[in-house]
Amino acid sequence: MKLTKVDLSFQSCNSNYPESEVVIFSVPMDTTTSFRPGTRFAGNAIRVNSIGIEWYSPYQDKSLKDYHTCDLGDLDIGVGNIKLALDCVYRTTKKILNDQKKPLMIGGEHLVSYSTIKALYEKYPDLRVIHLDAHTDLRVDFLGNIWSHATFMRHVHQFLGDGRIYQFGIRSGDKEEFEWAQTHVIQQKYEISNLSKVVEEIKNHPVYVTIDLDVLDPAYFPGTGTPEPGGITYKELLGALTEFGKLDNFVGADIVELAPMLDSSGSSTMVAIKTLRELVLLLHK
Amino acid sequence: MKLTKVDLSFQSCNSNYPESEVVIFSVPMDTTTSFRPGTRFAGNAIRVNSIGIEWYSPYQDKSLKDYHTCDLGDLDIGVGNIKLALDCVYRTTKKILNDQKKPLMIGGEHLVSYSTIKALYEKYPDLRVIHLDAHTDLRVDFLGNIWSHATFMRHVHQFLGDGRIYQFGIRSGDKEEFEWAQTHVIQQKYEISNLSKVVEEIKNHPVYVTIDLDVLDPAYFPGTGTPEPGGITYKELLGALTEFGKLDNFVGADIVELAPMLDSSGSSTMVAIKTLRELVLLLHK
Amino acid sequence: MKLTKVDLSFQSCNSNYPESEVVIFSVPMDTTTSFRPGTRFAGNAIRVNSIGIEWYSPYQDKSLKDYHTCDLGDLDIGVGNIKLALDCVYRTTKKILNDQKKPLMIGGEHLVSYSTIKALYEKYPDLRVIHLDAHTDLRVDFLGNIWSHATFMRHVHQFLGDGRIYQFGIRSGDKEEFEWAQTHVIQQKYEISNLSKVVEEIKNHPVYVTIDLDVLDPAYFPGTGTPEPGGITYKELLGALTEFGKLDNFVGADIVELAPMLDSSGSSTMVAIKTLRELVLLLHK
Amino acid sequence: MKLTKVDLSFQSCNSNYPESEVVIFSVPMDTTTSFRPGTRFAGNAIRVNSIGIEWYSPYQDKSLKDYHTCDLGDLDIGVGNIKLALDCVYRTTKKILNDQKKPLMIGGEHLVSYSTIKALYEKYPDLRVIHLDAHTDLRVDFLGNIWSHATFMRHVHQFLGDGRIYQFGIRSGDKEEFEWAQTHVIQQKYEISNLSKVVEEIKNHPVYVTIDLDVLDPAYFPGTGTPEPGGITYKELLGALTEFGKLDNFVGADIVELAPMLDSSGSSTMVAIKTLRELVLLLHK
Amino acid sequence: MKLTKVDLSFQSCNSNYPESEVVIFSVPMDTTTSFRPGTRFAGNAIRVNSIGIEWYSPYQDKSLKDYHTCDLGDLDIGVGNIKLALDCVYRTTKKILNDQKKPLMIGGEHLVSYSTIKALYEKYPDLRVIHLDAHTDLRVDFLGNIWSHATFMRHVHQFLGDGRIYQFGIRSGDKEEFEWAQTHVIQQKYEISNLSKVVEEIKNHPVYVTIDLDVLDPAYFPGTGTPEPGGITYKELLGALTEFGKLDNFVGADIVELAPMLDSSGSSTMVAIKTLRELVLLLHK
Amino acid sequence: MKLTKVDLSFQSCNSNYPESEVVIFSVPMDTTTSFRPGTRFAGNAIRVNSIGIEWYSPYQDKSLKDYHTCDLGDLDIGVGNIKLALDCVYRTTKKILNDQKKPLMIGGEHLVSYSTIKALYEKYPDLRVIHLDAHTDLRVDFLGNIWSHATFMRHVHQFLGDGRIYQFGIRSGDKEEFEWAQTHVIQQKYEISNLSKVVEEIKNHPVYVTIDLDVLDPAYFPGTGTPEPGGITYKELLGALTEFGKLDNFVGADIVELAPMLDSSGSSTMVAIKTLRELVLLLHK
Repeated sequence: MKLTKVDLSFQSCNSNYPESEVVIFSVPMDTTTSFRPGTRFAGNAIRVNSIGIEWYSPYQDKSLKDYHTCDLGDLDIGVGNIKLALDCVYRTTKKILNDQKKPLMIGGEHLVSYSTIKALYEKYPDLRVIHLDAHTDLRVDFLGNIWSHATFMRHVHQFLGDGRIYQFGIRSGDKEEFEWAQTHVIQQKYEISNLSKVVEEIKNHPVYVTIDLDVLDPAYFPGTGTPEPGGITYKELLGALTEFGKLDNFVGADIVELAPMLDSSGSSTMVAIKTLRELVLLLHK
Repeated sequence: MKLTKVDLSFQSCNSNYPESEVVIFSVPMDTTTSFRPGTRFAGNAIRVNSIGIEWYSPYQDKSLKDYHTCDLGDLDIGVGNIKLALDCVYRTTKKILNDQKKPLMIGGEHLVSYSTIKALYEKYPDLRVIHLDAHTDLRVDFLGNIWSHATFMRHVHQFLGDGRIYQFGIRSGDKEEFEWAQTHVIQQKYEISNLSKVVEEIKNHPVYVTIDLDVLDPAYFPGTGTPEPGGITYKELLGALTEFGKLDNFVGADIVELAPMLDSSGSSTMVAIKTLRELVLLLHK
Repeated sequence: MKLTKVDLSFQSCNSNYPESEVVIFSVPMDTTTSFRPGTRFAGNAIRVNSIGIEWYSPYQDKSLKDYHTCDLGDLDIGVGNIKLALDCVYRTTKKILNDQKKPLMIGGEHLVSYSTIKALYEKYPDLRVIHLDAHTDLRVDFLGNIWSHATFMRHVHQFLGDGRIYQFGIRSGDKEEFEWAQTHVIQQKYEISNLSKVVEEIKNHPVYVTIDLDVLDPAYFPGTGTPEPGGITYKELLGALTEFGKLDNFVGADIVELAPMLDSSGSSTMVAIKTLRELVLLLHK
Repeated sequence: MKLTKVDLSFQSCNSNYPESEVVIFSVPMDTTTSFRPGTRFAGNAIRVNSIGIEWYSPYQDKSLKDYHTCDLGDLDIGVGNIKLALDCVYRTTKKILNDQKKPLMIGGEHLVSYSTIKALYEKYPDLRVIHLDAHTDLRVDFLGNIWSHATFMRHVHQFLGDGRIYQFGIRSGDKEEFEWAQTHVIQQKYEISNLSKVVEEIKNHPVYVTIDLDVLDPAYFPGTGTPEPGGITYKELLGALTEFGKLDNFVGADIVELAPMLDSSGSSTMVAIKTLRELVLLLHK
Repeated sequence: MKLTKVDLSFQSCNSNYPESEVVIFSVPMDTTTSFRPGTRFAGNAIRVNSIGIEWYSPYQDKSLKDYHTCDLGDLDIGVGNIKLALDCVYRTTKKILNDQKKPLMIGGEHLVSYSTIKALYEKYPDLRVIHLDAHTDLRVDFLGNIWSHATFMRHVHQFLGDGRIYQFGIRSGDKEEFEWAQTHVIQQKYEISNLSKVVEEIKNHPVYVTIDLDVLDPAYFPGTGTPEPGGITYKELLGALTEFGKLDNFVGADIVELAPMLDSSGSSTMVAIKTLRELVLLLHK
Repeated sequence: MKLTKVDLSFQSCNSNYPESEVVIFSVPMDTTTSFRPGTRFAGNAIRVNSIGIEWYSPYQDKSLKDYHTCDLGDLDIGVGNIKLALDCVYRTTKKILNDQKKPLMIGGEHLVSYSTIKALYEKYPDLRVIHLDAHTDLRVDFLGNIWSHATFMRHVHQFLGDGRIYQFGIRSGDKEEFEWAQTHVIQQKYEISNLSKVVEEIKNHPVYVTIDLDVLDPAYFPGTGTPEPGGITYKELLGALTEFGKLDNFVGADIVELAPMLDSSGSSTMVAIKTLRELVLLLHK
């Protein structure tokens, strides 16, 4: 009988870092959240409750047990300091990429995706970003902040440039954002039905996928800070995941905006967990 | 720096009464609620949380900021006195109509709609009523009360007469109600797919829309006293709202039966808020 | 004025046992539940809240008031003793069947269905079982137990044999379970669209229906221990119930896995209640 | 094996009416509740959860099993009709008293105690009332209603007269109520330390005890509509119960204002349950 | 009948600014909260639920109706920008003081008190601060931030100097904080029993009172981000309020750290509301 | 930058096993829980939320950072198999004791303490057990089980013998239990005021402390399966912890019965966390 320290890695993703091809980490940051905060707790809620899901996916006929995945846990980003936090995410992602592994991030608020995408862009200058979300996140500034969950994709655009950001499911934003989007990003409002065509189009490019889980209708994902009625169903999201399986160069992904304090039934946490399992398996192509 | 009193108007609907074309008010009454009470708190829950939604609607390409809307807050109706409360709603609606403005009410239980419809009927004798609901509300009496959320549309029928009430989404009631409905109202059970045709038919008449939010499936709207599984999706409700935009004479509306105490995630409150924003913009034709 | 003891039978199913054709009982057992327990409280949560639904079903145009149904309440199964509990369910079902009545069970965890199906099989050797569920429940053993919610259908197979178990909506299990299923049961993954064809095929056989309510997407049924995103809608379940109405020999049914402690809005409890009402009426053919 | 209908009597208080000396009933009324409603559900919440307490009281060294107590369940009072409800409570109490039994009521809002006290007064013209509460309940009218939870003790005073109402723990009311109280009732503000002396003084008179559980500090009893910080502890309430054991003629009692919808941990419901067990045993002197 | 805009001022504190002697405002900031956020919602939760308390205080025999108090609502501080928010609080307090009114602030996290105390110190260089709290808040820096809820009182010390900060109820902090406190502030650990003596000592000085409501035991105030067991009771806090009534120069106050998202029963919100009512009345000396 | 696997040890108790003097582990078992289950989740809820407490204790003037403590996490006990689970706890405790370390267990239901006490008794035949609890746990059998949370201390008595079990705070049980207790254990009902005297008496013996947190009044600890009103305050429990500091041979301890699903505010979890911190520091004498 050998006694060892507690291991609360996501499901069976308990490999050590050196041997792993996919690396999970979470970012407990919700500093710029404008309505209801709490996404900082998403990572550990996902870890602790991941015993509630199978390691086998019938959708992909693959099992987490058959791959080496490491879970770094919450990054140590302090509290209330945006710059510090973004830099930590950026350096962690760089390190993972340098070590020839794939990053899979759990937010936190959506602003944290800025740093992963930046690091990925530096490795893959030809990067394309698929962005599922209820909100445009294309503001120039928001409530006095330039760096905000509501502006992060505008920042991403600054280095990615026109026509490389593909948005789906968008149903909330300011008038200016929607107008700006028309000439700078590819955007499907309300629905994600064009995703299949887009994947076909960009499948040979390196692709990063960022999923704000509030792209789902609040019926399917009530446990989030700013639920926006009129979203997609979970089966539609599963359909999107199937599409991602067709990407030839799927280089990283994230899921953001689970707020466990708002998830009294725990079903939103299970939505995040199932989505994460599928993404781990997809990245282990 | 000028300091002024707190203003908790719904979103940016903070115009003064005289300059407003649309007037919001809420009725904190749930006296005849037979199962789980609490709709009395809907109005202020909607106000306080309305910061969680944009003032711009991509569906209508219109913004609350571009119109003058006044929010009166909760009417002062006392507690437990049905007659008093109904009379207060009636007189308030009359006043709004006399001032050539459009009323937009937040319930409360559905009985309160009796008073707004009565006042509107007196101004528009040719009034038609579109009624979205899970329940028929066509009883003669209920648990010893003639005036009840379960009887209110029967009372409305007494002055409106046959063929002027259009019900959609109905899936609960007594056998007698369904039978009576066949000859007195136009009723689509379970679905709202006929709404488009009805709007086409009555678009030149003055039309009032009363939305019991429990027409939505409890998946989409769990925060209500008497959830009835088997309802419509929020996208279907958005479709209905689009239809209302085709009415030439949309004279008033209400949303009822949000019960914030049953909405631990807050997503049902956001459903009410988004629906209210769309209705404000629709009434500002 | 005659004062009598409290009667908390399900809705208006308050007939005495001898005169009843359908007999409801609940089994407060969740001993082998591996994730979040609490289904032991389902029966009484359903009873107490059943005042929130009508006794009339517009779907079947039938009313609970027109039939004799008895509600036995929770069986007295002790705590933590699986054998004792299963035996109690078995003997109760046998007694009901011997008295020429139809059993309608409320779980508890899904393991309890083993005992009802066993008793029914002994009366109807030609029994077919329709099984709606998110999970296969076909394991050989689970976390050290042979008798478990995750193994119960494998046990049922031991006496029923190949080709008599029809599974629908399955989306979670181990690889081995899915493989084993291919040659031993009829299984439709993710969807229930084949149900109509199956009912047509087996309608002349005695059929038992076991509904793990987690076959529904967690949007529609969050109040359960192990929510599995990607399930069916409540309208699809209503469609299934309509199909069951075509069975010529519908001999018994159950609904399992409601966990009231996880149902803060009460809407999952209403899902169970409405489903139960429809099943009572279906069994009173 | 004999199968019988469900029995959800409070704990083991499942005797039939004729053989019982103490009779429990609950009144699902909260019509005049001015802040947060929901006490209508107290009775059945208490019944269903009473399995969580022992039938033996170490405080009194007595057991519920050793006495005959009947539980009538919720009275059938309709919804929203105050007069009807009060009359039903009155007639039920009269009937119980005529049958030489003792009534033990579960509220509902405090207004329902008016009817029990009236019926008791008619049997015992020399009645004294001990009233534990956070609120004075001595208004002349409240929010337009003469009959209200906030006025009921003023109505009781009309027939009982001066000096027969003993209030303890009072810490909320209007200025006028406190002033009126000085000359008409015996009132201890904030504390209940004088209870022992009062019991000594009135022990030979017939005494009714009405306990608004919000006399407890919200720390001990958060699950109530209008929690008022600064109340007594549960040990102090246990002390009061011990005092009631010294009454020679304890003729009836009630506990009111549990609101289960506000009791997410269930601990307030257990407070009501334990208090009810002690009262049953005290009444079985 | 005159229709006017919604007024959701705290209880009956609905006077206009110019005529008011006491001015309430709330600060929706929780940017540096290190554990569970959400105090940003305290102000409006207090406003909306303040109908649940009387305007009359039996403790002081005074009524809110008899004084002019203005409620400014939430200050407009943006999101995630500490400097901006602190400056806004500072300027607002300055303005109120310049207009010869008394400020009464609702937090938000405790850091916001830095700004009110600074403004008050500039008006009253002889200021004393009474600080009720579970936590020392005396760190030099915390998780990488110098400006934090955990450091704010250390900043206050920088201008106030030694011996002018009186802490009570403290039971959590780092070893260094407790050591530093011994020579720089007057601190009573765990209890507040010395408060009476302190008030006697400093009653002629201008005194500001800052109440972190988590000084209360979590039994009495569970709805806060960082509950620390072992605190005082609400009656002890009422005792402290009585002491504050003896101050000759009570110049301002605040209550902080109510987190409504963690207050499912609403009782913590009522604790804040009652405390606020008492403070309004105390400041209207 | 070195990336390593997630570490979710309790607070800063993250030493490796070999170097540690105190070893924490949790037992996710609630199989025999008779009322509301869920204590299986206590261990990880405590771990994840332990960031909400300081590592420094002002009560003991000691810090977790100054000691080597290992946290093993949840033991791997399967589901629903009592024998297997008890044996696993027993063997783990034996191993820890053999390695000259001190065990500190987190339940789970109280039955798990049987195994730790047995292992400790085998090492320390002169063992004394201090037992804080609301319930006697002295039944011979319970609901058909001999091994149950309600019987475990009776089993402990079988090997410990008369006069070695010291119970405090007991306020619930069957009549037979209380009677049996009089001659076999030392029991203080309702209170713990005799603890100081008992500690003085047995301080030279090896002592194990088992704390059922429901010894606290539900006001202080609502998040438990079977709350029993009338318990002690948290300050009284802190007093007991201070007494334990006087033991010369404090050989191990446990805290049991936290049920996180019932702790919506999280304050009960913080009670467990703070108590655990104090116990870790006490065991590191």
